[in-house]
Amino acid sequence: MALSDIIFKRLRDIVGTAYCSRAKEDLVCYSYDATSQTCFPDAIVFPQNAQEVSAVLKLANKENFFVIPRGSGSGMTGGSLAVSGGIVMVMTRFNRICNIDKDNLIAHVEPGVLTGKFHSEVEKHGLFYPPDPSSSEFCTLGGNIAECAGGPRAVKYGVTRDYVLGLEVVIPTGEIIHTGVQTAKGVVGYDLTRLLTGSEGTLGVVTRITLRLLPLPESVMTMTAFFDEIGTAAKTVSEIIRRSVIPRSIEYMDNASIRCVKNYLNTSLPVKSEALLLIEVDGKADETIAAIDRLKSICTSMGAIDVNLAKTKAEAKSLWKARKALSSALFAYGPDKINEDIVVPRSKIPDMVKKIELLRNKTGLVMVSFGHAGDGNIHFNIMLDKKNKAELKKAEAAIEELFDYTLELGGTISGEHGVGITKIPYIKKEIGSVELALMKKIKNLFDPKGILNPGKIFPYGPAA
Amino acid sequence: MALSDIIFKRLRDIVGTAYCSRAKEDLVCYSYDATSQTCFPDAIVFPQNAQEVSAVLKLANKENFFVIPRGSGSGMTGGSLAVSGGIVMVMTRFNRICNIDKDNLIAHVEPGVLTGKFHSEVEKHGLFYPPDPSSSEFCTLGGNIAECAGGPRAVKYGVTRDYVLGLEVVIPTGEIIHTGVQTAKGVVGYDLTRLLTGSEGTLGVVTRITLRLLPLPESVMTMTAFFDEIGTAAKTVSEIIRRSVIPRSIEYMDNASIRCVKNYLNTSLPVKSEALLLIEVDGKADETIAAIDRLKSICTSMGAIDVNLAKTKAEAKSLWKARKALSSALFAYGPDKINEDIVVPRSKIPDMVKKIELLRNKTGLVMVSFGHAGDGNIHFNIMLDKKNKAELKKAEAAIEELFDYTLELGGTISGEHGVGITKIPYIKKEIGSVELALMKKIKNLFDPKGILNPGKIFPYGPAA
Repeated sequence: MALSDIIFKRLRDIVGTAYCSRAKEDLVCYSYDATSQTCFPDAIVFPQNAQEVSAVLKLANKENFFVIPRGSGSGMTGGSLAVSGGIVMVMTRFNRICNIDKDNLIAHVEPGVLTGKFHSEVEKHGLFYPPDPSSSEFCTLGGNIAECAGGPRAVKYGVTRDYVLGLEVVIPTGEIIHTGVQTAKGVVGYDLTRLLTGSEGTLGVVTRITLRLLPLPESVMTMTAFFDEIGTAAKTVSEIIRRSVIPRSIEYMDNASIRCVKNYLNTSLPVKSEALLLIEVDGKADETIAAIDRLKSICTSMGAIDVNLAKTKAEAKSLWKARKALSSALFAYGPDKINEDIVVPRSKIPDMVKKIELLRNKTGLVMVSFGHAGDGNIHFNIMLDKKNKAELKKAEAAIEELFDYTLELGGTISGEHGVGITKIPYIKKEIGSVELALMKKIKNLFDPKGILNPGKIFPYGPAA
Repeated sequence: MALSDIIFKRLRDIVGTAYCSRAKEDLVCYSYDATSQTCFPDAIVFPQNAQEVSAVLKLANKENFFVIPRGSGSGMTGGSLAVSGGIVMVMTRFNRICNIDKDNLIAHVEPGVLTGKFHSEVEKHGLFYPPDPSSSEFCTLGGNIAECAGGPRAVKYGVTRDYVLGLEVVIPTGEIIHTGVQTAKGVVGYDLTRLLTGSEGTLGVVTRITLRLLPLPESVMTMTAFFDEIGTAAKTVSEIIRRSVIPRSIEYMDNASIRCVKNYLNTSLPVKSEALLLIEVDGKADETIAAIDRLKSICTSMGAIDVNLAKTKAEAKSLWKARKALSSALFAYGPDKINEDIVVPRSKIPDMVKKIELLRNKTGLVMVSFGHAGDGNIHFNIMLDKKNKAELKKAEAAIEELFDYTLELGGTISGEHGVGITKIPYIKKEIGSVELALMKKIKNLFDPKGILNPGKIFPYGPAA
């Protein structure tokens, strides 16, 4: 479906000539996301307010073209790709932090605000916004809501949905709606706020957000524990939770991850270790000291070969930099990445780690795993050259086996990346046909003409 | 719509003769809830598993009768009343705590389990389920999910929705569906779990619940602060939050509440006080001591006339008993109660308290207010004799004024009781027509024949 000159002119009339383009050199910038796939849109628009978003969506309904909302394009499953053409609606001009309300521990923000920028702004007021995806330096709050982003601090603090109190959203038919409340409690009518959170940009375009904040913890302490057996590291994670110690983060990196990030950032991580746990606690100063002591002793008694406390903020920061760089660093192992985002109950992490070892040995593929072990969320990656068809086939079979085992252990095939396009082939493994049909009917209810972000979550086409 | 003998026989075939009745003496027991309104159902059934629930709902679709799910009937807005007849489906046989999993901090339970019973069971395992509605001794977890119950601990710990990970639900058309996950994270498909939570029994009948738990806090400390001016108490609440102290509860009782519960329970509360704050903190032992010291000093510096720490567990328990008895004790002031459940941003509590004073003076009605001040949730009650039409008219006008002011302050007309039937006349004050139409369409999508809990949230009848 090529966009006619008339429609393009209409779009320009809505958002202004400077904020609309179909020049190839502009389109290429908005043709990809973190999946490394490329889908060219027919045009891009940069609306600046809800009224413009509404006008574009109304036009799309009338003229039958697709609209794909997009933040920074840091998504891992293709949620912002124009898989069937159409226009990409870039939300980066919605970049204002409208209000940080210390008395009520809330903020009003626009969806194009960078998550990391929001973190530092609220911290200036002594406040804290826990969700912290690894892409926080470049992802947007709107994208975080679309995917219900998580990150390392979810162990103690939960995920994006736990902080979204209310939304202004333009639904696909162009009406501007307001959901939720500005208060901790609120139960008037159905919970549209949480229905929209994690709906991957298929039910509406978020134009304003009310977020819940917490007081900034007084003290944060960061430690590492190294293990010479990956199973021991996995068992240590379960043991920490079993003993009712709840750090804010328990991150995990396997040997391949450690090596990879060491080369990429020239860190001092010991490459001989089979596994690393990066643990962070927060709270009052004496409380964090006591927690670190307890964690050191659990790690040591479980068999850690080396346990270190980050002595300075700079040291802690460089550990996180290493952890957050991993997703990019992995490309050293191969031109392509199949990146998964499974979650298993925490006590099943040792089983999952064993399974990954088995799969690695069975297939001979390069597998790297790391992730948010504290909440059972493991980012499992196969590095390969997708042009090598035999390798790709083996990798796909391994993924399928991994997903089946994840579900067998009581887990889920996506903890924080969503379904997008990459997990569509697997969604029926987890979601039953009645449940999927209900979801599809909800999609049709919000978007009867199917113009908003088609081909995501559900296969493109008529109702399942 | 009277239930035919044939349908009644079919119901008996499904659930068994012993678990189905239409004897008037049985029906009367299930004809009311905490609103004191009476609606006789045509029959009552007590299913024991999801298959029986499904069979009843399928029959209802085929034979066109209404089904009203019910837990303990402790709801405050009429959610479990058979307002248009039909059969009341009593879920109390779903009373098993299936599994408490300390390793993964989750539990699997049935919806008929009493909330208080669940609290004490998980506490035996050193675990903690925060949501704690005042009716916890007799309400059910299923009812808590239907209403998204809150309670005093929401200040620090959030509400029911923050602890529901997954559900087994029989949707109105009779299919048994499974939503959500067993893990902290999970983003595959739309969030049906939170759409169902707080949907007031209009979208499905919950038959099994996966709940998130926390480690039981090591120490809990409870204190009271008395004030000779209600405005000072209100300002103290805002000041506590503004100084980033987050107790787990900050409850508030006005003078009328203090007098009332004193008579009802023969407590030693000083009736001369204009207001009482009941504050509770939890955490590590030294942390709670430090928090109490800080709170004492904030309360005193704000103007509290008396600040006391509960010295024993028994003393703390009796304070909570007094607080939780209030809702029943109020009937000493009048045969009827109009009970509201407004929430305002915490910093606006002083304004709301002033407004209530104004309304009291203007109308001369008996008004009592108490509630979860820490999250801005005020239970505002007018005690009256509804047979006195002039009084009733005045009361209704006062409520309307109060709701308008609540919304003007950025609040919501219901924090935890839901819309049910009692707030239907006011829902459009808070929810826009597009939003309400979306909700109604979701209802129709789940329940095309409108057989499940009709006349709740939305006015009974065709789509808005």
